Amino acid sequence: MLTHKRVDTNSLFITEHLNNLGVEVTAKHVIGDEIERLTGAIRSAIDAAQFVILSGGLGPTEDDLTRDAVAAALNRRQIFNQAISDGIEQRFRTMNRVMPEINRRQAMVIEGAHILANDCGTASGQWIEERGGVVVMLPGPPHELKSMFTRQCLPRLERAVRSITGGPPNAIRTLELRICGMSESELDQAIAPIYKQYENPATTILAHNSDMQVHLRARCATERDAGMLLAEVGAKIDAVLGDRIYSRNGDPLEAVVGHLLERQHATLAIAESATGGGLGERISSVPGCSAWFLGGFVTYTNRMKIELLDVPADLLLRKGSVSADTAAAMAAGARRRTGATWAVSITGNAGPTVDGDQAPVGMVHVGISGPAGTETWHRHWPASDRARVRAFAAQMALDLLHRKLKQ
Amino acid sequence: MLTHKRVDTNSLFITEHLNNLGVEVTAKHVIGDEIERLTGAIRSAIDAAQFVILSGGLGPTEDDLTRDAVAAALNRRQIFNQAISDGIEQRFRTMNRVMPEINRRQAMVIEGAHILANDCGTASGQWIEERGGVVVMLPGPPHELKSMFTRQCLPRLERAVRSITGGPPNAIRTLELRICGMSESELDQAIAPIYKQYENPATTILAHNSDMQVHLRARCATERDAGMLLAEVGAKIDAVLGDRIYSRNGDPLEAVVGHLLERQHATLAIAESATGGGLGERISSVPGCSAWFLGGFVTYTNRMKIELLDVPADLLLRKGSVSADTAAAMAAGARRRTGATWAVSITGNAGPTVDGDQAPVGMVHVGISGPAGTETWHRHWPASDRARVRAFAAQMALDLLHRKLKQ
Repeated sequence: MLTHKRVDTNSLFITEHLNNLGVEVTAKHVIGDEIERLTGAIRSAIDAAQFVILSGGLGPTEDDLTRDAVAAALNRRQIFNQAISDGIEQRFRTMNRVMPEINRRQAMVIEGAHILANDCGTASGQWIEERGGVVVMLPGPPHELKSMFTRQCLPRLERAVRSITGGPPNAIRTLELRICGMSESELDQAIAPIYKQYENPATTILAHNSDMQVHLRARCATERDAGMLLAEVGAKIDAVLGDRIYSRNGDPLEAVVGHLLERQHATLAIAESATGGGLGERISSVPGCSAWFLGGFVTYTNRMKIELLDVPADLLLRKGSVSADTAAAMAAGARRRTGATWAVSITGNAGPTVDGDQAPVGMVHVGISGPAGTETWHRHWPASDRARVRAFAAQMALDLLHRKLKQ
Repeated sequence: MLTHKRVDTNSLFITEHLNNLGVEVTAKHVIGDEIERLTGAIRSAIDAAQFVILSGGLGPTEDDLTRDAVAAALNRRQIFNQAISDGIEQRFRTMNRVMPEINRRQAMVIEGAHILANDCGTASGQWIEERGGVVVMLPGPPHELKSMFTRQCLPRLERAVRSITGGPPNAIRTLELRICGMSESELDQAIAPIYKQYENPATTILAHNSDMQVHLRARCATERDAGMLLAEVGAKIDAVLGDRIYSRNGDPLEAVVGHLLERQHATLAIAESATGGGLGERISSVPGCSAWFLGGFVTYTNRMKIELLDVPADLLLRKGSVSADTAAAMAAGARRRTGATWAVSITGNAGPTVDGDQAPVGMVHVGISGPAGTETWHRHWPASDRARVRAFAAQMALDLLHRKLKQ
């Protein structure tokens, strides 16, 4: 489905698991819903790789071509499976609905395929062995795919990898360091002298909204060897980056902040203007955050800043809503009104226009109020769009809070 | 870069623009950072298509192989370009930094290439004509790619499409209907009798967190013909779905809700527990929302529900924080405290565990308080993870508010 609205998370999920089994993903192909092209792509994938994993196109509609394309590529027939059809009918009955006739297409199974049951939807998966390799068909909706892959596909994959390589899979292990407060090229300059000494592990730097990740990927005979190699290279990078590394286990910044708050028996409140709830959304994405996250205020208008956070009306008039003084008053007000140990405020102009007394587009002020008083910082991202300014602002607020908590 | 953390939005953006020019995207390939494989993939793409657009791999580090791979695939030399190098140095100077030596790699240009300047970063793009086709190299960071593509690449593409097809490009136009309150197969059953009558436009149904989209894609000789065809099929779908269609122009639900509020001179406040700010984040993603969005409260703990929203403490004890009564009290409290015309509340248990008096994982209550009183609804998503329950809950709240505003 090559339209412009489809983001693919499935392949990222599958890649992670394949890597853990020592299987390298050499290419990923996204093919339009066109039967000849799809069949051709599946044929060449089978020639080029030992495992071909397909996701999507198993639904009931005429767009759903994966079954037909695989059957054509493998030159096998499809056979109607009564048990699958009954299962789909039953699924509809429990929702008090009648199975639409088109769903019968989902009961067609390729000759010789092993069926992978779907706990979360109507599309069954299929596992087909061919010429010493394997073709796997998984459903497209990410939650269906994840459940089916983990429960039904992964154990078979492990066995297949073992039998194809003639021994235990060699191990790929990864170490993920997360860094904030550096640009991508600053980070690369700092660590290139280290990672260039090693062909293995492979090093990749990823940048996302000023959040940096360094991925080290070691491929060794055993998990233990891979782990030791990662420890060796990781220690050298550690020595260079020090406390700029905020996480070594994949935890996002909000989770690290949460652990620090919990360990310090402290609580957190928020006061958001420009981000409208985005900071709270990130903070509360951490499971169990109610131990340290109280909540807070979204004060999008000046009146809300005055009424909910006691920001002085004349301050807003004199300094404007996007100013260091307003950020400070918002953070202090949120802390006072909630009784939290710490309060973080964000006020800014995310664009696209400059209204009234507003600061220029891309200007953001962050305030942090804590036991020792209130501080503010500001940054300007003049060339960024609304979504990016908001994402940067939330990241900046978490980064600053993280530094305060580490002091 | 085939690790498991990379989501590709660039190709979606490019596909949209290519479609608008009448260029169909036949395949998308993601290739690991390995020079031979990359070179091979570029060679076969050039054989298979008239336009090959590459994104990423133009950075300064050794991972950045796209320049070398294209040079190898086209059998052309690379030449150091002093002007690009000076520009990068200048860029670093304005940030009070010295250009790292590795950035000089970014000044290498393929023989015969036209340079595409980068307004937002150090990686220049390149436009190379080869055997009547075109190879384009664009940077990987989405904001750099978007800016370069729109300003520098698109005008050239238009001319190239015209010269290759020997006339004005034929037009692909799309109509995007957004629907809520139906499942994917209910939607398909309702409209399949219509769209199956037409080979052109092509119809696709997309489902995302219970938000449904129907994309109609018409390919005709002229934009006018494509527009008329879409109007004809769109009207038939309209007759069947009626007010289940909430948007016909790509506007997301939060923008549609915003337009309704603005037209009714009404304002909105929020009171979020389980979603922690996610509803406010979506609402405030709409530019200009300060005309109708006041803000509100994130009340993650019971104490905050009591202190910030006047939810009675004994109600929380008797009914629990995840209950219809609590949702109603939260919405009414937010409305009273902010003076908004409407207030929407969300309380639920997004998981992963059941704490204290909590409802089961996946249970969500939504309250809406308005001029005529307060109503509540609830839904249970027992099989969904934390992120999905939170996304579903925000969508449910917007859907319910949308219906109230349409009454």
